[in-house]
Amino acid sequence: MSVKVISVLENILQANDQVAAANRARFAAAGVYALNIMSSPGAGKTSLIEQTLRALAPQVRIGMINGDTTAASMDAERGARAGAASVHINTGGNCHLEAHMVRQALDALDLSALDLVIVENVGNLVCPAGWDLGVHARVVVASVTEGDDKPYKYPTMYRGAEVLLLNKIDLLPYLDFNTDYFLQGVRLLNPAVQVFPISCRSGEGIGAWAEWLRARALKHG
Amino acid sequence: MSVKVISVLENILQANDQVAAANRARFAAAGVYALNIMSSPGAGKTSLIEQTLRALAPQVRIGMINGDTTAASMDAERGARAGAASVHINTGGNCHLEAHMVRQALDALDLSALDLVIVENVGNLVCPAGWDLGVHARVVVASVTEGDDKPYKYPTMYRGAEVLLLNKIDLLPYLDFNTDYFLQGVRLLNPAVQVFPISCRSGEGIGAWAEWLRARALKHG
Repeated sequence: MSVKVISVLENILQANDQVAAANRARFAAAGVYALNIMSSPGAGKTSLIEQTLRALAPQVRIGMINGDTTAASMDAERGARAGAASVHINTGGNCHLEAHMVRQALDALDLSALDLVIVENVGNLVCPAGWDLGVHARVVVASVTEGDDKPYKYPTMYRGAEVLLLNKIDLLPYLDFNTDYFLQGVRLLNPAVQVFPISCRSGEGIGAWAEWLRARALKHG
Repeated sequence: MSVKVISVLENILQANDQVAAANRARFAAAGVYALNIMSSPGAGKTSLIEQTLRALAPQVRIGMINGDTTAASMDAERGARAGAASVHINTGGNCHLEAHMVRQALDALDLSALDLVIVENVGNLVCPAGWDLGVHARVVVASVTEGDDKPYKYPTMYRGAEVLLLNKIDLLPYLDFNTDYFLQGVRLLNPAVQVFPISCRSGEGIGAWAEWLRARALKHG
């Protein structure tokens, strides 16, 4: 008799990919460009979204989907205050967003009134990397305060990104951060990734990032 | 007919707790004090271990067990260079350490020649919190560069700690970090946690932490 093997994780990931494809079709039908922003806790995802809203709104109409492990919706509220149509997802302790969570959040947004949806993932440099949400670009925010060795230690996250934002560069004078060593690690894993050095605090570099994003968001509209 | 429910996660956690209890018994038999150090990526776990070794060795004989998601053993090598008997665990992409991984690492250490074992968990502020490794104290390293809202957003990690090290305080003059707001969140979750403000870069506060640890490590010896 043969043995039937049930690969639970594989089945879960396949189901996720199907929902992600449906999310992707929904974005396409509405002419909306979508981002999945991932980082360590405290690398500056919410500050980046605030700065991006400041640079692009109201010309670019932006929705924000914010994932957190609890009911604390302070980040979603920051997005709303900055002018985004904002939805909070409480993952109930889950360490990453999955496509079905984004699907539910999309039900709460009027996509026909938006050009861009920014998904802010749970702060975690390991788990979110494996989950397709149906977006156009995966954006990793690294902060210089985390140290220059992170690409070498969390390769999956860096390998899967289309865009890398290197944040908190205003703090470089006070750190031992070797930018060449950091970027060498990034390039080894992901030669095609688009890199923007930024500071959400001083605003440095935000313009170049915002222009990159504006072109894509309006092209899809 | 009744339905049998198999709770996979519950079974896994029960199995983990059994192995953790065995690890705990092994530490007790050898008179070794053990720590589980957890944090976001880049909060300074390895730098803390280097500073702790500098402050306590050779009087306190220290072993280090370093968990990473890949074969990159740079952190374990930093521990070894600083004088620790050092073991690297490659979790194979897993986002946290489990008790059986620590058991395997203990097989590679001569506990009779040690007073203290420091386990450095995978950099992750969500997943490691739920897994007992059999240590005496769970230590969370928070860095001020992550922002003052982290206790409110990652409560499980802060709730379960015996010690909180608030690192990178040398950078406070360059940040908008409200220490009172941060500590208010910590105390709400965990009134009994022992807090040490430190800077692994300047060495500030390391002495008080090292004295706290020295007393415990030598009492167990």
